[in-house]
Formats: sequence, C-alpha cells, structure tokens
Amino acid sequence: MKLKIINPNTTWSMTNMIGAAAARVARPETQLVTVSPKMGPASIEGHYDEAFAAIGVLDEVLKGEAEGVDAHIVACFGDPGLLASREVARGPVIGIAEAAMKTASFVSTGFSVISTLARSRVILEHLVNVYGMSGKCRSVRASNLAVLDLERPDSNARTLILEECLLALREDHSDCILLGCAGMADLAADISQELGVPVIDGVTAAVKMAEALVEMKVSTSKAGGFATPLPKAYAGAFARFAPSSDDVNG
Amino acid sequence: MKLKIINPNTTWSMTNMIGAAAARVARPETQLVTVSPKMGPASIEGHYDEAFAAIGVLDEVLKGEAEGVDAHIVACFGDPGLLASREVARGPVIGIAEAAMKTASFVSTGFSVISTLARSRVILEHLVNVYGMSGKCRSVRASNLAVLDLERPDSNARTLILEECLLALREDHSDCILLGCAGMADLAADISQELGVPVIDGVTAAVKMAEALVEMKVSTSKAGGFATPLPKAYAGAFARFAPSSDDVNG
Amino acid sequence: MKLKIINPNTTWSMTNMIGAAAARVARPETQLVTVSPKMGPASIEGHYDEAFAAIGVLDEVLKGEAEGVDAHIVACFGDPGLLASREVARGPVIGIAEAAMKTASFVSTGFSVISTLARSRVILEHLVNVYGMSGKCRSVRASNLAVLDLERPDSNARTLILEECLLALREDHSDCILLGCAGMADLAADISQELGVPVIDGVTAAVKMAEALVEMKVSTSKAGGFATPLPKAYAGAFARFAPSSDDVNG
Amino acid sequence: MKLKIINPNTTWSMTNMIGAAAARVARPETQLVTVSPKMGPASIEGHYDEAFAAIGVLDEVLKGEAEGVDAHIVACFGDPGLLASREVARGPVIGIAEAAMKTASFVSTGFSVISTLARSRVILEHLVNVYGMSGKCRSVRASNLAVLDLERPDSNARTLILEECLLALREDHSDCILLGCAGMADLAADISQELGVPVIDGVTAAVKMAEALVEMKVSTSKAGGFATPLPKAYAGAFARFAPSSDDVNG
Amino acid sequence: MKLKIINPNTTWSMTNMIGAAAARVARPETQLVTVSPKMGPASIEGHYDEAFAAIGVLDEVLKGEAEGVDAHIVACFGDPGLLASREVARGPVIGIAEAAMKTASFVSTGFSVISTLARSRVILEHLVNVYGMSGKCRSVRASNLAVLDLERPDSNARTLILEECLLALREDHSDCILLGCAGMADLAADISQELGVPVIDGVTAAVKMAEALVEMKVSTSKAGGFATPLPKAYAGAFARFAPSSDDVNG
Amino acid sequence: MKLKIINPNTTWSMTNMIGAAAARVARPETQLVTVSPKMGPASIEGHYDEAFAAIGVLDEVLKGEAEGVDAHIVACFGDPGLLASREVARGPVIGIAEAAMKTASFVSTGFSVISTLARSRVILEHLVNVYGMSGKCRSVRASNLAVLDLERPDSNARTLILEECLLALREDHSDCILLGCAGMADLAADISQELGVPVIDGVTAAVKMAEALVEMKVSTSKAGGFATPLPKAYAGAFARFAPSSDDVNG
Repeated sequence: MKLKIINPNTTWSMTNMIGAAAARVARPETQLVTVSPKMGPASIEGHYDEAFAAIGVLDEVLKGEAEGVDAHIVACFGDPGLLASREVARGPVIGIAEAAMKTASFVSTGFSVISTLARSRVILEHLVNVYGMSGKCRSVRASNLAVLDLERPDSNARTLILEECLLALREDHSDCILLGCAGMADLAADISQELGVPVIDGVTAAVKMAEALVEMKVSTSKAGGFATPLPKAYAGAFARFAPSSDDVNG
Repeated sequence: MKLKIINPNTTWSMTNMIGAAAARVARPETQLVTVSPKMGPASIEGHYDEAFAAIGVLDEVLKGEAEGVDAHIVACFGDPGLLASREVARGPVIGIAEAAMKTASFVSTGFSVISTLARSRVILEHLVNVYGMSGKCRSVRASNLAVLDLERPDSNARTLILEECLLALREDHSDCILLGCAGMADLAADISQELGVPVIDGVTAAVKMAEALVEMKVSTSKAGGFATPLPKAYAGAFARFAPSSDDVNG
Repeated sequence: MKLKIINPNTTWSMTNMIGAAAARVARPETQLVTVSPKMGPASIEGHYDEAFAAIGVLDEVLKGEAEGVDAHIVACFGDPGLLASREVARGPVIGIAEAAMKTASFVSTGFSVISTLARSRVILEHLVNVYGMSGKCRSVRASNLAVLDLERPDSNARTLILEECLLALREDHSDCILLGCAGMADLAADISQELGVPVIDGVTAAVKMAEALVEMKVSTSKAGGFATPLPKAYAGAFARFAPSSDDVNG
Repeated sequence: MKLKIINPNTTWSMTNMIGAAAARVARPETQLVTVSPKMGPASIEGHYDEAFAAIGVLDEVLKGEAEGVDAHIVACFGDPGLLASREVARGPVIGIAEAAMKTASFVSTGFSVISTLARSRVILEHLVNVYGMSGKCRSVRASNLAVLDLERPDSNARTLILEECLLALREDHSDCILLGCAGMADLAADISQELGVPVIDGVTAAVKMAEALVEMKVSTSKAGGFATPLPKAYAGAFARFAPSSDDVNG
Repeated sequence: MKLKIINPNTTWSMTNMIGAAAARVARPETQLVTVSPKMGPASIEGHYDEAFAAIGVLDEVLKGEAEGVDAHIVACFGDPGLLASREVARGPVIGIAEAAMKTASFVSTGFSVISTLARSRVILEHLVNVYGMSGKCRSVRASNLAVLDLERPDSNARTLILEECLLALREDHSDCILLGCAGMADLAADISQELGVPVIDGVTAAVKMAEALVEMKVSTSKAGGFATPLPKAYAGAFARFAPSSDDVNG
Repeated sequence: MKLKIINPNTTWSMTNMIGAAAARVARPETQLVTVSPKMGPASIEGHYDEAFAAIGVLDEVLKGEAEGVDAHIVACFGDPGLLASREVARGPVIGIAEAAMKTASFVSTGFSVISTLARSRVILEHLVNVYGMSGKCRSVRASNLAVLDLERPDSNARTLILEECLLALREDHSDCILLGCAGMADLAADISQELGVPVIDGVTAAVKMAEALVEMKVSTSKAGGFATPLPKAYAGAFARFAPSSDDVNG
C-alpha cells in the first residue's frame, strides 16, 4: 500500500518530523511518502493560510493520483482542502483532525483539543461540529503557541501544552487529549505517559485509519458530494488545474 | 460608498449580469465595481472548483483593500473564500448565500433553496447549518442545471427552476424561495411575480446588506477568528500573497 | 421610505433616545416615526411585561399599516410581538435583537450579549436559539441593571456594562458585543471605541436592515406562518382588534 | 385541590366541551373551574390571535391566584401566555401542548401531532423544539380544519383527522397521536380505539399533570426566569395589570 | 391502582427508604409494591453495573405484568432497563430521571442535577440529551459521594449535596435542583426548604407521573419501538426469559 | 495481535459467517477468535433482546481480558453492551455500528443504513445521534427481514435489501450504504458491485478499526465515564460478575 502524507505547510523540518511520526506507526509493508507542497504558507494559522494551503494539498493529491497512491493524508489539524481532495481522489483522503476525533470517540467519553493560537479555535470548533463531535468534545484550548514555535528546540511548548492538558482534565472533565497541530506529533507518547490518559496525535491516527480503509477496499464515493469535478476551463495561473473529461469517473 | 462585487468564477458574461442585477438595487451614491478573478474556474460546481475560486476571491479582496473598497461581496452561492476574505478585509465581506438566508429569515417562516446540480446540495446544506438556518430552511432542491446553462439563452432554466419552486411550496411547505446561484439573479422578480411569494436573489440581498453594514460603520472584528493573517513566508507561486507585518491590525 | 419604530415600553424619554439613535444612522430620505404605545409597561423585564407590550406593538403596527408605513421596527431586545406583527404587516417587521444578532454574524466569529437583569437571560437565550445563533453567541451576560436605570443620568450603567463586556472578551473569547437593551443605544459608539471591537446596538442595526429590505422590495411572506389573521370575532375590550375580511391578503 | 382550566379563546361551547373532557378524567376531590376570558379571539389560529389570547389568559390567572387556585391549565395547543402566566402564578401552570408531548414521551418512540390549519404548523413546530421533543416528534400534520369547524356537528372533522392519523402511522412511522387542538378533546378515546395506538388529548394530559404536580408540592420556581414581575407602572388600558410591590415573592 | 417500584440495586435498606418516600406522596388508593431484584449490583455506578441491574429490573417487570401491575417505576437515576421494560409492559414504565426532568421542566427555566460520583456524569448527560432536556439542564454536578454513602447515617452527604446545590444556583444560574440518585429521596423537602427553590426527587415525581398516566388510561404504544419482544429461543441461563408467542400483543 | 469478535446472539451459524467475513479482511498476523455467548437471545430485535445480549457480551469481554485479548468487537448493529464493555476492557472495544458509521463518514457525504425489521429503527436512529452522525445519515430504512431470515438460504434477503438500497440512493440522495445487521456481512461486496457505491459492512469496518487502534497503542481511557467498575457485591445469579478490587485500574 502506498500512502501519501501531505503536510499542507511548506516548512520541511515539520514535514520530516511528521514523516518520522508516521513511520513509527505505519506497518512495514506500507510505503510512505511525506511531502510539503511547492507553494503556500510556512505555517497555517487561520482561514487565509488555509485557503492557500488547500491549493498545495490539491496539487499533491493530483500528483498522488497519477502516481497510484492508495490513500492521502492531510497533515494539518484544520484539515485544509480535505473535501476538495476527496473529489479528485479515488482512494480515501484522511484529515488528521477528523482521524484524531473519530479515534478518540472509540475510547473516550469526553476529550479536549489542545491547539496552538487562540485564533485557531473557531476553525477547530467548526470541525468539531462538522464531524459530529460536539457531544464528545468538552473544550478546545489554546496553548498560545505559534505553529513554528513547536519547531524551536528552545521553546517552552511542552510545558505550555501540558498545562492546558491538566486544565482540560481537571476543569473540563475530559478523559482524553487530542494534540491539535501536526507539529505536536512527537509529544504524544511522552504526554500520555505523564497524564495517564490517551493522548492522540492526528498523524498517527490518520495513518492507521488510512491503512484500515485501504485494506477494507473502501474508496471515496463518487455518487454524491464527492463526485469527480466536472470538466471545464480554468483561467489564468490555474489553467493547469482544470478538470478534464478524462477525470470523470466511469 | 465603494462596493466591490466579486463573481468568483471567470465567466464574464455572468459577471456582467451580476453587475446589472446589483446596479438595479444599489443606491445611486453607491459606487459598484464588479469583477471576476483573473484565474480560476469558469463555473463553480463542487469543493474542488471552490478551492481555486477562493484564491481568486482573495486576490480581488486584497486589491479591493488597496483600492479603499468599503465592503466586498462574494457573488457565488457557495460563498467560497468568505471566511478567509474576512481576515484580510477591514470592512464587511458578505457572501450571497449568507445574505439571502438572513434576509429570508426576516420575512419567512420556512424557505427553500433552488440550486443548480445535485452535487452542490451538500455544500448548500453545510452553509444552512453554519449560518444557523437549519430551523428555517425546509429544503435544498436541485434543478439539475449546470451553472453555465443559466447563461444559454435557449436553455429551459426558467422552467426547471419554476418546477422546483412549485414543489417547494407544495410539498415542503415553504413560503419563500432563495435562488441558489448568482447566475439566477435576473430571474427573481419574474418568478416572485409568478409564485406570489418572496423570491430572494443573493446578489440583491448582499448589496443591500453591505450598504447597511457600511452605513452602520460595523467592520469585521479583528479580535477573534477573523484576525488579520500573521506575517509569514509563502513559498513558490503564492509568495506574493504572503501576509506582511504591515497588514497586521493596529 | 417611511419607517416606524415602536418602543414597546411606554417610557417616552427612552423612546426619544431611541428615535435620536435611529436618526443618526437613517438615510436622509428615510422618514422616521418613533412611538411608544398608549398602553403597557413602563419597562419590559420578563415574559409578563412582554405579553402586554406585544399588544401595544400590534396596535401601533396596525396604525402603521393604515398610515402606509413601509417597515416597522420593534425596539426592545426581547422582540415582543414580533411574529404577530408580521401577520398584520405587509412590509418587513424587524426586531432589534434579531437585527443585532444577524448583523453581528457577518463580522464576528463569536459574540456576547450584555443584558440588563439576570431574569431576562432566559428570554435572550431563547431568541439566540430561535434565530439560529447558538453557534455564534458565546454568552448572555447580565449587568444587573434595571431597564429604567439606563435612563437615570447618575446611574453607573456605563461602568457595569463595560465590566461585563471585558469579561465577555476575556473569559468567553467573544470578539463582538451586542447591547441587549434598546435603552443602551446611545452607548454603542463610545464602548466600541473603548474596547476596539464591534459593538452593535439593535436599534441601529434594525434601521439599516429595514431600509435594506424595503429597497430590496422584499415583503413578509403571506404563504406560510405569517399569513394575514383570519377574520373572526374578538370579544370584549379587544373587539376593535378583530381581523376583518378586508385584511385578508388578496 | 382547586384547578382552573382556561380556554384562551372566547367560544364558550368549546369551553364547556373542554370542561367536560377534564371532568371525565379529574379525580373526584379535584375542584375544576373552566373558563374563557372576557376578551379576546373566538378561536386561535396564528401568532396574532395568540397575542390577544395571552392577555385573557393572564387576566384569568391573576384572578385564579386571588381565588386560591392550586394550578392553572392553558387549554389551547399553542400554549399562549404560558411563560408569562408562570411569572404570576405560585402553583404550576400547565399548557396542553407541553403536557401532551411530555405524556407521549413516556409511552411512545415517535409521535405525530394532528393540528387544524396548515398556518398553525410553525407554531407547533416551535413548541416541539422548545419542549425538547424534536427527537420524538416525527411530524406535525395539518387536517385543514378551522378551529371552529370542530364545533360544528355536521363537519367532517373526525374523517379528516383520522386520515391524517393513518398517514402519520404509515408514512411517518409514528406510534402515537397527539390531538393538536383543545377542540378535539372529545375525539381521543374513539380515535385511539380505531387506531390501536395511544391518542393523547392535551386537556386530559394537563389535568393529570397538574394534579400530579400539586400533590408533589412542586411550585413554579421564582429564582430564575419565572420570577414574579417587578413592580412598575403600566400605562393606559393596561394600568390595572401593573405588577404592584405586594406581588413580589417574599 | 397497583404500582410497582423497582429499586434496581439489591440494597434493601435503600429499597425501604424509597418505598417510604413513595408512600408519603402516593394517593391512599394507590397500592405500592417496592422491591429489589434478586440478583444484581448492590449499587449502580456506571454502565457495567447498569447492564446487570437492567436484567433484575426486567425480571421484576415480567413478574409485575403477571401480577397485574398497572405501572412500573425504575427507581435508579440512570433509568437502567427502562426502554427494554417498556417492550414487556402493557402499562407505563417510568424512570425516575425522566420523571424528575419532565416535572422540573414545567416549573423551571433551568435546572441542575446533583449526582453522586463524577463517573456517573456521562450517563446523566446522555439521559439529558435523550429526554430532550439539553436546553433546560444547566449542569450535572457530582457530589463525589458513593451511592452507599447515602445510606450511612454518619456520612456528610447532606453537606456535600447542599454545597453543589448552592454552586448550581450561583454559578450555573439554575432555579431548580434535581436529586440525581434514588438514595437522596429523603433529602428533598429539607433541601428545598433551605434553598428556597424547587428540589425534585425522582421517586416522588415518578409515582405521581405513574398515577397520572394510569388514570389517563395511556399505555405503552406497541406500534413502534416498544413493540412486544418477538418470540424466540434464549440460550443457557437466560432461557427462562425467552419471549414466547403468548406475549405477543393481540 | 489477538482480536475477539463477539456475536452477541447465540446463533452459531451466524457467528461462523461473521468469523469468515472477519477473516477475509483481517491481517495475517491478527489472531481472530469469534464467539457467541453461552446465554442469551438467538437474535437481537429490540431493547429487550439487547439487554440480555449485553450480559453475554460482558461475560465474553471479561473472559477476553483474562485471555489477554488486545481488542474486542461487538458484532451486532445495535452495539449492545458496548459502553459497559469499555469499563472492563483495557484495550479498545469496537461496536460494528459505530465502526461502520465512522468509516462511512470518511468517504461519503450522506449514507443510509439498511436494517432488518422496522422495530429496530429507533435503536439505530438513537445510535446515529449518539455517534454524532445525524448530519451524515440520510435515512435508516427497514427491509422487513427478521434477523434469522438472513440465515435461510432460500430467503429473498438480497432482493429486499437491494430494493431499499436503490430507494436510499434515489430518494434520500445517499451516496453510501451501511448494512445494518452483522448477518448481512457476506452481502457487502456483491451489493457494492451492483450499486457502484461503497457498501460498508460493520464487521469488516470493526476489524480494521480494532487493528488500527491496537497498533496506535490507544486504549480505553479510565479517567472518565469508562473507568473500571468499582468493587462491590452482586447478589444472586450475578454474584460471579461482581467487580473485585483487583480489577480497579492501577
């Protein structure tokens, strides 16, 4: 099975860390490709960043389809470009937020998401609703870390995240933590150890969900809202992204 | 007041029709600029099209900000790029779906949206939920028209749309119709006449909402999820879109 | 355009203040009439007060219809008599709570309403739900001011309201404030200045929404739950309010 | 125990029928008083009628409090004036819609409400939501009967209602019927016999709920949104309804 | 009328206390039988305990049906076995949580449930949703008492419960308290006196609701999800519980 | 990895079919044990059957824990005993309804569940809500097949199920089918082929989800509502199920 992980931001140090986290949990026979798009934001911290990141994600998914990838993973906790990607992919496309929340829902009666900046909270709260998790998610807490702070070895990221985790358990009565940024993937095991509750990293969850779906032979339905884009002209700089009639399913 | 209307697709015949519909309802002192982006899909019929359209919308909003526009309108019923646009705009940014639904909610106890293709239904149903209109919207009905069919003088668009309207009134107990595509803007008056119920075109609604908000001196809040994008590098083809520190509010 | 603003309580000093707030924002060509009913409570602080205020509102809407008013505004943040008024009005009838919330929803990712007494909280929370704003409204906060305290020049209203605003921004993560009483209309600009976020007064919002709807030529749908009252006898003191067959639409 | 049943409309033939239905189910020791207000609509078929009916209801509840009534029942399926009545009553005030729905929820996995005119549907759907019954109520169906048609011996009311009941069972998968108008109270037993499912009349349900609450010694909480109206002046024709400081609890 | 109250746990001292609480409020002509099952947990503090308690409840309901019981009450605040019991009972089966919440909803604008251990919170929150009370229930608070602590005369149960009640009124703005364990039934009157708000014990509420439904002649609908169990074989230790064709309604 | 699949009914022919379906999709290194409980109903078609099946499930989970099982699967589409099982299991416990719905939500914009008898519909609709899938599930359709009809080689099960699938696609606009009974597991591939949309069998989905969670090293959180049952006495026939202090986590 060939699995393509797309870090939607263009910071390759984070991409490499994500790839390593994925490799730790993927099965030996799973072939992993982890990339960042050629274009787009260095980090994703709002709707504007997400809009550009989505194009990078789509570019990589289109390439992935040409390369025969079995499933794609969008490795940013806002799941940018996820729905659009499902229109162009035959196999499953998994967002790490969706994967993390659904994984948590099997083992938890109420979880908290620890995000980076406060400004990302509305994006995550929106995903909580869209994924049907408003009855399960007890809080989205901001650690007030910029995404790229997570990359700095001298940052106090671990401390700040842990603080919010403890508040989530104590004040919000959560019994499970979701790390709300792909850049936190390497902290999961350590924090879970410290807290004594499941701590779920979305990259890990998405890799395992993707493997599961591919082995189930479940692919993205083309009979509804994820139907292949209709062939049409795209103007200007996006001309090369125009869906051609060859793409149409069937 | 300067009002910029962005038709997110690149079909200028539709852009001109939208501009004419807006001009019919705008106040004399409102200065209207109606444009299509330089790049992007000829019509928007799914998440994939929307992702690219969003970039075109953002490009035009950024230009609009530089030109001193007081408010922007996103004139596609899926409201592509709306939330991201609010991060970069000082003044209000109004989507035609949001404007139409909120307008309807003042005069109706239950409305239906008549959309184009069935594949767009999930996008509209999502907006209904996000805008808090699930208690008001009784149905989203597809007329099985492609967006560009609306441009063809010989199409049976009016007939197909009218048929769905009648079903909405009779079977779904709706008392108000929303035209679910900017390309239907010129049909509103005629269909309303025929049905005897309010028929709301989003372009019209958005122009009047935009005028209202500007005159109220209400601008987009920068204290929450619509805060100005943080300065950071954007790689590759999107480098020119990178938020600079000059943009940060304050 | 002729616009009638009804302050549902019978305190004319507040009516005059409301009229002044409306005049500051209405367009020159809009003709404003601002009234209080002849009968009813001096202030509205609960369901009982609202029930009587609703009759005064209806009395004024009926007169407004006879006078050729284009739209009515119900200028109390509980929107008393709003739905009943829509049955007897041809043009739009706008409640200030509904107008404020819908206005806020265009520019905010989460707002708070600052109300007067704690006992009004359930009424406002109900409106938040009915208007589909439970995903947007982060809190309804009581300032523990009686409505008529707002009229007393020596009251500490501004201080108490400001305190709750600050808590709303800090603790509830709101990015926009709604002033939850028509009697606060004159505080909006000043508080917005102080807080640096949009502060929305319902009177202002309703005037601009009413102007917008009238110019859109959107009137209240008579095909559903706002159909004209059926002709029938009304007994006793209310005999003069009995709908006659002349009222029936068509 | 003294129980006052208020038929909010002023049609005494219906009031008498309601009184008879109540008498059939009340306990021997329960003293029933069934009245219509002195003022207000002959039938209630919309928000406008409800607004006036609410005043009549309040007038009777205020008298009932003076007369030492233990609980009040509002015997119209729209529950007009219910919340306001709870502010002025010490004992419970029970609406027949609320009583019917809560009764049904103990014995049914999904019920339908059969109402009179289609225009009342939005009022009932609103109550379904407010009473938390949207997960239980499978449909609100209109029989297209005017309320006073139910009083006419020659009307085909029973046939039309039964037709909708059968559709509710067959098409909406309901297993219980609620008669959505006090004027249908005398049909419950007969229709239940015919359908073989519980058919719940709100008058019956409200009488038994009222008896239950009084015997439980549970009275309306005055610590929240049903607190006694604050003393204040009421202008004009409503002056006599002004809450005086004597009314305040404690 | 014969009413059977089943304490689903096997601690007879609690059963007796429940029986005494029921006797205080039941009508003289109501014949009460209060029992514990022969098998099952000494207290119910989680889903596992509930699963076993449900069998004990069903055993007693089946016996009750043979004995001609008119209605059953499940006297544990998690309502274990309630839905299954409704399949085998002809008359109503009332859970004390459901009865307490629905009773409260007639007299309160927002209530809190005071439960025992924190681990029970998710069970109660689930019931709040299932019973449509999420708009009414402002909090579920744990007093950190084990169920059987309530039986110990020297426990500080009253103090701990009262503390949470006060927080519920002050911080959660509740105006009514529900005692979230059958073992608290004897505290209701005393705590209500102290707090000055309605305090509702589910045993009391269920007895009065059961009496009301029986007198209304409303029985459990067999036309939907509470249909009589289909005849089939049960293996092993449960063979005697196999539904036989004699049980099928009709 | 050792994976235990529990068919909660006691019909071993179905158990064997389930085991075969699981084996087709499990990884070679996954050791599968598929069992039926020793006691309980031959098929599960309602709440009553579920209550007894839950005990059988718990019995097998307890044994599974003793045997060092890594994860359990509850292979009945009502997920009986699932939450209780999570209290006694260290590893994940996966219900096939939950697994199927969450799997579908990755690849579908709206699915339908095809169940057996109409009486099961309320149980499935409840699960749809509890799992947060009400925005995704467009219908639960009954095929009017008894569970054990699925075992009869001469039944018209495939035809009836296919009919409902086609209605789900055409009338409910679904793009994905969930087979709502473990007994349908062997039909998935064939029906998917015929319909051209994903058809998801819960057994398959649960096996792959279980493998994924075990490999993620995510276990059931013991810090909230799935905490280990507290040690206490169980009376009578259930004495052997009493949680002992040895079980308590830690």
